Amino acid sequence: MSSTFRSVQGSVTAPPGFRAGSISAGIKAEAGARDVSLLASEQLCTVAGTFTTSRAPAAPVLLCKEHLLATNGRAQALVMNSGNANCSNGERGLIDARRMAELAANKLGIDPQHVLVSSTGIIGRPLPMEKIERGIAQVDLLPDGGHLFTLGIMTTDTRPKEIAIEFEVEGQTVRLGGATKGAGMIYPNMATMLCYLTTDAALDLTFQQDALRRAVNDSFNMICIDGDMSTNDTVLLFANGLAGNTPLAANSPGASVFEAALRHVTRYLAREMARDGEGATKLMEVVVRGARTDADARRAARALTISPIWRCAVYGEDPNWGRVLSTLGACGAEMLHERIDVSFGEVGVVRGGVAVDYKPEAAKAVLAQAEFTLNIDLHMGFYSATAWGCDMTHGYIDENATYHR
Amino acid sequence: MSSTFRSVQGSVTAPPGFRAGSISAGIKAEAGARDVSLLASEQLCTVAGTFTTSRAPAAPVLLCKEHLLATNGRAQALVMNSGNANCSNGERGLIDARRMAELAANKLGIDPQHVLVSSTGIIGRPLPMEKIERGIAQVDLLPDGGHLFTLGIMTTDTRPKEIAIEFEVEGQTVRLGGATKGAGMIYPNMATMLCYLTTDAALDLTFQQDALRRAVNDSFNMICIDGDMSTNDTVLLFANGLAGNTPLAANSPGASVFEAALRHVTRYLAREMARDGEGATKLMEVVVRGARTDADARRAARALTISPIWRCAVYGEDPNWGRVLSTLGACGAEMLHERIDVSFGEVGVVRGGVAVDYKPEAAKAVLAQAEFTLNIDLHMGFYSATAWGCDMTHGYIDENATYHR
Repeated sequence: MSSTFRSVQGSVTAPPGFRAGSISAGIKAEAGARDVSLLASEQLCTVAGTFTTSRAPAAPVLLCKEHLLATNGRAQALVMNSGNANCSNGERGLIDARRMAELAANKLGIDPQHVLVSSTGIIGRPLPMEKIERGIAQVDLLPDGGHLFTLGIMTTDTRPKEIAIEFEVEGQTVRLGGATKGAGMIYPNMATMLCYLTTDAALDLTFQQDALRRAVNDSFNMICIDGDMSTNDTVLLFANGLAGNTPLAANSPGASVFEAALRHVTRYLAREMARDGEGATKLMEVVVRGARTDADARRAARALTISPIWRCAVYGEDPNWGRVLSTLGACGAEMLHERIDVSFGEVGVVRGGVAVDYKPEAAKAVLAQAEFTLNIDLHMGFYSATAWGCDMTHGYIDENATYHR
Repeated sequence: MSSTFRSVQGSVTAPPGFRAGSISAGIKAEAGARDVSLLASEQLCTVAGTFTTSRAPAAPVLLCKEHLLATNGRAQALVMNSGNANCSNGERGLIDARRMAELAANKLGIDPQHVLVSSTGIIGRPLPMEKIERGIAQVDLLPDGGHLFTLGIMTTDTRPKEIAIEFEVEGQTVRLGGATKGAGMIYPNMATMLCYLTTDAALDLTFQQDALRRAVNDSFNMICIDGDMSTNDTVLLFANGLAGNTPLAANSPGASVFEAALRHVTRYLAREMARDGEGATKLMEVVVRGARTDADARRAARALTISPIWRCAVYGEDPNWGRVLSTLGACGAEMLHERIDVSFGEVGVVRGGVAVDYKPEAAKAVLAQAEFTLNIDLHMGFYSATAWGCDMTHGYIDENATYHR
């Protein structure tokens, strides 16, 4: 499948018609760290979005929803800052988020309602609006600024996470680019999970939103760094239609290839986030098969990416499958103890709920890899799910036990 | 309330008619570590129990349920081993658990169905039955053996957790004793959560079971070390009736004082478990008030005892209330961001969802205590709940990343 997708450079500016950039405005404590970023399209885009379901959402999340509702899913630009989440700032938070949209709109000469806003960083501190105002005024929008944009959205990430691909839809060449950030699923001190996707394909908005929701459900919603969700989580897909194709709807011949591309990109970015989890030394892929329902498959797979006890064993490269069984038993999915199979990579360790005669060194060697798959078969039905996570380490404790500034 | 309960010595043997003991049978790797324990009553007891709801329960849990069903809640003894969970051993696990009951029954001259069985330790290794057989044969049952029993059930616990009290019920002096173990809520490598309670009060079995369920719901079900449940969790309350009172039923005048005593004992033991959590340096009490429902109150309180990100901040004595808000927002309980109040002990930090003007040093001083309370008011309704947990530390990672033997 992925062989039909050709890698290209440029992150979110790989698709024609998008420009982006970032600048250091002095919001983050580290000197020179980029913390104000801008993404803009030459023409109005259809925009699909998914947002945190937190009951304490940050102001920019509320503003994005308000704007997309008012414009019926149209926007032309995104402005974002890192270093401050603009969350739990009361009425002032919303005023400041609105001001960010206005400042970007004035710079670009567009309607403020066509600007979306994100923030990420510490909770409960008012945004430093003079710095943000200066930053928005100074940031350069470049046709090849995608990588600078990716750098600007990072917080505790140890590496930029971006991708761009080119592929054919109904005979037309289109591009899809994406950038994401986030090293703790919940890390309101400094971080959150944000992802921006761009394409020059024209998309019917209903299809765009449905395809994005499905792709997010199987990618970002299946990763876990520390088992929780942030107040600022946002995924946005901008489609500017410059490819000139007939807008893709659910029943278009090209819908399936576009959706496959979207899944490819979101899955790649989600895996990279799990790999770069705070303190992580390993990427763990958990594949659960044979679940009675889709919800059970997801529940079981995610439980194993959350369990501290199992993730500590992964850190210690300890093939302690008892912790896998115990976590499965407690996760709430329907199962029968005596049907459960467990393998570390290709090394089967449990069959029918009891240990098989396996070589501990072989199992240990699987866990020693930088990336490994934990395979579970519940033998209860026909549903499967894949989740991604990382080990729990001293580095995680170090990163999260220090004082916030 | 607790002033009417007088502390006495003796743990589970404080109530008349109970004897107990433990011995080192060589199941645990540490030389001389006690790993086979026995508790017996002079006469048949009514027994109430609560057990793990894991879909992968250990064999002794299945056997306890089978015996209590067959005897309509009567038993006279408990035999238990630490060092091996007897879980995921297939049919052999149940045969071995049954054999443990038989061996204890033969020693005591009672019906094997009147013996309950527990195991705790590593999952997926067959029980070393010769060692267990020798251990059961050799263990001394002493009228003051309660403390030795408590020592015998410990695994990664750093200290014994036991209590005994004396109080009056309907003019009669009765005693209630208890011992518990467990330093990881899920720690199938070596541990699990077990609790044994004894009383000489005569109890109507329906009242006994209901009162135990309610007490467990507000004590052991409200503690968290690492957010999960074990395959072996068991709480048993033995009532031998030697006090000679009319069996207490729900409508007895003395029912409420007995139930208060049971809550006092289970809450004490639960708090001690949270305080002794693997790697813990602090006991955190979370009190949530103003929830719309009882379930919402429990959900919110427990979420804060589970969140790794918040528990790391507690370890670092970092009064980062943004992590509290973020965890609350994600927990699923009904709330409105703009109504949430948060205090660390008496130091208010958030009122109506935004920061109040507080002294960070004062908030930090609260977190620096060995024991502190996090107070939340959701201002959504009239339900409250209290949960207990501990900080997440390097010690937890160390204890859980090492190889199992």
